[in-house]
Amino acid sequence: MSVVQLTDEERSTWLSTLEGWEMAEGKDAIQRTFEFGDFIEAWGFMSRVAILAEKQDHHPEWFNVFNRVEITLTTHDADGLSLRDVHLAKAINAL
Amino acid sequence: MSVVQLTDEERSTWLSTLEGWEMAEGKDAIQRTFEFGDFIEAWGFMSRVAILAEKQDHHPEWFNVFNRVEITLTTHDADGLSLRDVHLAKAINAL
Repeated sequence: MSVVQLTDEERSTWLSTLEGWEMAEGKDAIQRTFEFGDFIEAWGFMSRVAILAEKQDHHPEWFNVFNRVEITLTTHDADGLSLRDVHLAKAINAL
Repeated sequence: MSVVQLTDEERSTWLSTLEGWEMAEGKDAIQRTFEFGDFIEAWGFMSRVAILAEKQDHHPEWFNVFNRVEITLTTHDADGLSLRDVHLAKAINAL
């Protein structure tokens, strides 16, 4: 899968299809925050994301506290956003 | 379990027993970073911590990217460090 940075045009096209995701501040990355009823629900979600990520060989930067999960996606190999991030974000949204 | 903030004396006593943990910067919390061989190992560790945390009804603030896990412990109900953090840190170290 491409590890080339998205062009400006690709970014705006893709971002408009990724519900809930927005550009991170000060970083060429996209992010989304998810909130759940409690830690067990948040953890269940994270477990599903973990397996998706490992299958895609593309891993999130993520933060959790209790029922909140903040996910940031960027592609270190591309030094910025790539299609890998788009694919993982789409898969996460589909959960 | 006590949700009272640790006294200065308790802090230095407890911290000296918590291998690898240090005070967080700008926050009344302790933190430790763990590194693993890959994401699967890091995730395995996190899964064990998640169950410990839920059992103790005390949840970490944590960040993961690939093989690195950064854990911060503080007690929101005490507005700072409490024995709950010490107990969870000890349990994590015992993994």
